[in-house]
Amino acid sequence: MSITNWILTAQCPSQLGTVDAITGHLYHNQHYIEELHSFDDTHNQQFFIRARFRAAEDFDEARFRQHFALRAEKFAMQWSLSPEEKKQKVVILVSKFDHCLNDLLYKYKIGQLNIEIPAIISNHPDLKPLADWYGIAFHHFPISKETKPAQEAQIWQVIKASEADLVVLARYMQVLSSDMCQKLEGWAINIHHSLLPGFKGAKPYHQAYEKGVKTVGATAHYINDDLDEGPIIAQGIEAVDHSYYPEDLIAKGRDIESATLSKAVKYHTERRVFLNGSRTVVFSD
Amino acid sequence: MSITNWILTAQCPSQLGTVDAITGHLYHNQHYIEELHSFDDTHNQQFFIRARFRAAEDFDEARFRQHFALRAEKFAMQWSLSPEEKKQKVVILVSKFDHCLNDLLYKYKIGQLNIEIPAIISNHPDLKPLADWYGIAFHHFPISKETKPAQEAQIWQVIKASEADLVVLARYMQVLSSDMCQKLEGWAINIHHSLLPGFKGAKPYHQAYEKGVKTVGATAHYINDDLDEGPIIAQGIEAVDHSYYPEDLIAKGRDIESATLSKAVKYHTERRVFLNGSRTVVFSD
Amino acid sequence: MSITNWILTAQCPSQLGTVDAITGHLYHNQHYIEELHSFDDTHNQQFFIRARFRAAEDFDEARFRQHFALRAEKFAMQWSLSPEEKKQKVVILVSKFDHCLNDLLYKYKIGQLNIEIPAIISNHPDLKPLADWYGIAFHHFPISKETKPAQEAQIWQVIKASEADLVVLARYMQVLSSDMCQKLEGWAINIHHSLLPGFKGAKPYHQAYEKGVKTVGATAHYINDDLDEGPIIAQGIEAVDHSYYPEDLIAKGRDIESATLSKAVKYHTERRVFLNGSRTVVFSD
Amino acid sequence: MSITNWILTAQCPSQLGTVDAITGHLYHNQHYIEELHSFDDTHNQQFFIRARFRAAEDFDEARFRQHFALRAEKFAMQWSLSPEEKKQKVVILVSKFDHCLNDLLYKYKIGQLNIEIPAIISNHPDLKPLADWYGIAFHHFPISKETKPAQEAQIWQVIKASEADLVVLARYMQVLSSDMCQKLEGWAINIHHSLLPGFKGAKPYHQAYEKGVKTVGATAHYINDDLDEGPIIAQGIEAVDHSYYPEDLIAKGRDIESATLSKAVKYHTERRVFLNGSRTVVFSD
Repeated sequence: MSITNWILTAQCPSQLGTVDAITGHLYHNQHYIEELHSFDDTHNQQFFIRARFRAAEDFDEARFRQHFALRAEKFAMQWSLSPEEKKQKVVILVSKFDHCLNDLLYKYKIGQLNIEIPAIISNHPDLKPLADWYGIAFHHFPISKETKPAQEAQIWQVIKASEADLVVLARYMQVLSSDMCQKLEGWAINIHHSLLPGFKGAKPYHQAYEKGVKTVGATAHYINDDLDEGPIIAQGIEAVDHSYYPEDLIAKGRDIESATLSKAVKYHTERRVFLNGSRTVVFSD
Repeated sequence: MSITNWILTAQCPSQLGTVDAITGHLYHNQHYIEELHSFDDTHNQQFFIRARFRAAEDFDEARFRQHFALRAEKFAMQWSLSPEEKKQKVVILVSKFDHCLNDLLYKYKIGQLNIEIPAIISNHPDLKPLADWYGIAFHHFPISKETKPAQEAQIWQVIKASEADLVVLARYMQVLSSDMCQKLEGWAINIHHSLLPGFKGAKPYHQAYEKGVKTVGATAHYINDDLDEGPIIAQGIEAVDHSYYPEDLIAKGRDIESATLSKAVKYHTERRVFLNGSRTVVFSD
Repeated sequence: MSITNWILTAQCPSQLGTVDAITGHLYHNQHYIEELHSFDDTHNQQFFIRARFRAAEDFDEARFRQHFALRAEKFAMQWSLSPEEKKQKVVILVSKFDHCLNDLLYKYKIGQLNIEIPAIISNHPDLKPLADWYGIAFHHFPISKETKPAQEAQIWQVIKASEADLVVLARYMQVLSSDMCQKLEGWAINIHHSLLPGFKGAKPYHQAYEKGVKTVGATAHYINDDLDEGPIIAQGIEAVDHSYYPEDLIAKGRDIESATLSKAVKYHTERRVFLNGSRTVVFSD
Repeated sequence: MSITNWILTAQCPSQLGTVDAITGHLYHNQHYIEELHSFDDTHNQQFFIRARFRAAEDFDEARFRQHFALRAEKFAMQWSLSPEEKKQKVVILVSKFDHCLNDLLYKYKIGQLNIEIPAIISNHPDLKPLADWYGIAFHHFPISKETKPAQEAQIWQVIKASEADLVVLARYMQVLSSDMCQKLEGWAINIHHSLLPGFKGAKPYHQAYEKGVKTVGATAHYINDDLDEGPIIAQGIEAVDHSYYPEDLIAKGRDIESATLSKAVKYHTERRVFLNGSRTVVFSD
């Protein structure tokens, strides 16, 4: 059997014995822990753990799940188990700007992101050639005020049909409906082209120019019912000066947006991110 | 004569001939330009220039000023001339937190900041020993709601008496009156313990914690009639993660605040900063 | 006439009047200076200047060149003049690793790099599809010990035929001959996958791992007769920790290498870089 | 009893059961793990773990040590246990440059570094007033070629008498003897004013200037028998450009050196650093 490394994650209300519930179980079944990180949020009384382990030779996933479930139940744990090598399925939504998409696709191709991309969805046809080049299905679902519910239904259908583990809004310039946001809460990542909470809303780079800031940044976050809010996963920043007009800030922003979104996708798909109310816990490398 | 390097700065509405007004004048008087930086803000039609030059042997400051004033007048230039080595006089206001003060005093002592400090003013007595150690006059002006106008008058008197070129609010935790702000507009630097415009107002680190940000920063800016706004001179930032409780963010913030404020004081006293409406132009090194 | 912004650069031994030679000439011909940066290296007695100016309506390039040449000659200036919008011709050499190439091509496509790419040359056929996708001529020149001189002659022919302004070695994994290095001295940029002078030679990331460094970086530099040395244009760096095995360092390195090389190409093609003996002067934005 | 948080660290050759040896023991004694980090270096077959735990009410340190020692012995673990709040004793060696010392003392005073400083030792008398100001014993041990062994004996005596947990060379400009280095191996931190392995040896900033680098940095490392080598704990870096002469690089270096050394002292005294052959494992926050 070639897959030997697994990722086990769990979270639950703080209480005595949570760490041992994982480490004891792994040890008694002869699984070898290569990396372990636990954190207890003492302000909010929440516990988080991530273990990467090399499974024993006689590892039986079904049996593991069955036995571990009994332990986890006692602690009201939410948990997940998956092979480290397993590629998570990521559906990408995009409009016309392609810098984030280009970066994600390149890192997907060379394996720097350990993902599959079953579908790219756009409200514009422009980026089909790029999807074709990478051999990825491209869905063009135009949108107007009237067709919005229907278009979102189309998007949802693709997401469901592809059994996506994660949805990435790689500069998708439409505001998702509240209903859609709720469906995607906690498993869709958006890139906000600003260092939140700095410049919410439209044209953040123009706002930044008007304020004369000396830094610009980007924020990758989970969407919740408010598209531009939601728990922050990663933020990036770069220095600028007086010679940057809005168009220069936008150009500078492309690299930060791409890098920040890729980082968030990497963290999520390596199962390093945990929701903690309106915040996240990220066991970054 | 030992002083040979001078800094000449100027700004005025954009028009043809502004650069030549400086460079031609320097050349025809045999002054040697070692570094020159000009920028024309084409959006706002404003011109800015900074020249560092080695004066000719027969340099006569009064004559230079007299002659250059004629040129400058034609362009409605605001300008300044001073020897590079001349120490600018900086009056520091502080309350109880001393991390910014400590950093400024150390850099003053070793000459990394080319400044004199004629006075330190505080609404608390706590930092007198530190001022004493550095041999700097310390003025303790307590403040209450009733005595605020009188206390500000005392502060103003010290600033005037010491012929300060710059006032630095190194974590001075009192809100200056609108009248005081106006008097100090453009020549007083405040450190805001947040990356503006992110978390204005009180307890920015607690706000940052609540939002779960992955970066914290600080902003050094000129004060205008709003103490927490005003043209930004420098901003600094550092990465944080979920394990930072508010008190940890505050600790992290100390280093950024100190470094960002020192940088702004350096830029200002090296005459690298120009006001440009609600923004600044900074010819950083 | 649509082109109105020009870049004028010059360098020469230090002497009185060099700045005025440029600014006076521009002013007397009614050209409007939008940005100007000069630096006098007092250690090495060398002068450098870059001016971006909006030409007068009656601008005649030939006449400008003729007149300015007279001024420049007096100072033994090396100088260049070109429209800001003019795309410089960049020939790219690459082997199998495509992260730098991918980044350059994307930034070329969206105009973030203001360049043309007349040719991509490789000693392997692997990256032809990528070149095809961007519609760029791809030359596959295989190499062996015996054919090296002939292969370099082929490369040189393409460079000459395409009238390249710049040659970029985007992870070209062959050591150029001393003769080829000399031909390209000062107008070919190499990316060294290390923060020089840290880990010269082969397998820098393995060397870095063995040393247990906490940062990895990349260096973009002009080639001279030593391929891995030459004046440094830009350096980039990122933090790493104990959990990075060599293969992780290599992955981390890809982003830094791409970003650092793109930055150097941007600086060079915007005529911001000057050779200063074994160093460079870079008037970065 | 007010101390409730403890740090338990351990390292040993890789083998099954190492994590459980710690987590099981803590759980069965009702100790609550707040943060846990383990790493298994699969290249070198070494295991590392750090646990921060809230002790059970009936915690008895002696009994804990006695019982845990039995477990640890089976795994040939090196381990340590100490209250999180316990201040480690740090002896500082310094010469004339005081930027690192100033930063350490300030952070000591405000409690940002959780340390005691029983002694400052110098081969020059210059910094005695600074030590006095902070109320710390200052030992002036002059040194000459002839007196070196005797002077090092004096230093050693102070270190032993003060029961130091850590020795910090805060720009101590003498080369320690091989014998002294061996005595201090693994518990003395040196700050090298360069990003190793970049510019070893004397005058690194002058070397950096000659090479025309665009970044300068500093390295904090444990000393081993070679003073300028030894396992790296932390590295810091800043961007520079052509306008930095060697003296400017030195000034820029001060902030990086101070910050990097303070960070290393913080990591060490929070017991986050483990020796791993010629490298370190650092469970940074």
